Amino acid sequence: MSCTVHGTAASGNCHKVRMALDILGEPYEWREIDVLKGESRTPEFLAMNPNGKVPVLAIDGVTFLPESNAILWYLGEGTTLVPDDRLARARVLQWMFFEQYSHEPAIAVARFIRCFLKRNDDPRLPELAKRGAAALGVMERHLATHDWFVGDRLTIADLALFAYTHKAADGGFDLARYPAVSAWLARCGQQGGVTEMPTP
Amino acid sequence: MSCTVHGTAASGNCHKVRMALDILGEPYEWREIDVLKGESRTPEFLAMNPNGKVPVLAIDGVTFLPESNAILWYLGEGTTLVPDDRLARARVLQWMFFEQYSHEPAIAVARFIRCFLKRNDDPRLPELAKRGAAALGVMERHLATHDWFVGDRLTIADLALFAYTHKAADGGFDLARYPAVSAWLARCGQQGGVTEMPTP
Repeated sequence: MSCTVHGTAASGNCHKVRMALDILGEPYEWREIDVLKGESRTPEFLAMNPNGKVPVLAIDGVTFLPESNAILWYLGEGTTLVPDDRLARARVLQWMFFEQYSHEPAIAVARFIRCFLKRNDDPRLPELAKRGAAALGVMERHLATHDWFVGDRLTIADLALFAYTHKAADGGFDLARYPAVSAWLARCGQQGGVTEMPTP
Repeated sequence: MSCTVHGTAASGNCHKVRMALDILGEPYEWREIDVLKGESRTPEFLAMNPNGKVPVLAIDGVTFLPESNAILWYLGEGTTLVPDDRLARARVLQWMFFEQYSHEPAIAVARFIRCFLKRNDDPRLPELAKRGAAALGVMERHLATHDWFVGDRLTIADLALFAYTHKAADGGFDLARYPAVSAWLARCGQQGGVTEMPTP
């Protein structure tokens, strides 16, 4: 399998895919996409992903797979990054859907507004702060009694949630208020292939 | 396996689960949750899902699985509703993550504002209309050349997208503008167990 990631280095959704490939030792090429310059809306990009979002995984140059968490599943299934047990697999997906519905739209969007758009007075920020704090609270409650999101090792659920959580400060969130989340971030960081994402 | 769905009959996320159980012929009990009365925020409900959202699938009374699309995967894996092929499985997840990130937050939320909250002048509606139309456009483009979202039969990706799409008019969307989506909705409706969701 030959892999090319069409992604943005400072995007958590793209950084997830980089970490999974690095952990699995899968070689890949990275094609940097500048979303602020409209590079995810060109006819060439839309031919790969009509939804116009990064990342896209190009497989053998002919198959184009969008949606970061679907890419994680594609790469991880059959490896230690995805458990075999039926309920554990559903739990991995539970946390990944939580990430895309309740976490990313608050924490990543607050970061995007502050760090990419540089609009610290954006009227959306107070509501995003509230929703992001709720998501971090749900994580804190789980991690108070668990080392990992599912089972006893790092899975793609941890990678999905690590991506934007370890840069939550970029969006104005104070991680010191979430000690179990902070301990889990440190635990993730000790795993080979789990790396810090650049801040734009 | 004994299943109880803690859900709201008029919620698409809950209706997905009902359809999957009906298609698979799995017996279940339905416990109606009135989210507008705060029934998804009680201590008892939060013990099942700390994120305070319907649906939750209770399995054998002791295991509580939230996130509609994770429930669909749990129920569907190993049946005809989830394909065996690695790429096809990732495609199912691709469309389900699309549904939760790009479709539901526009089309379901517009419906919620209009039909549950009865606020037809809500200032969020114009932006939701734009984002919902974009999501329907992505579906239309795919369905113009495919009968189903993945492969040659109904999968949980179709169920996930059917749930709010067949009630998109409740949110102010005109499905007549999407002929391939409309034909796919009719195709879904011919499958046993695919049923109309009540409008509140």
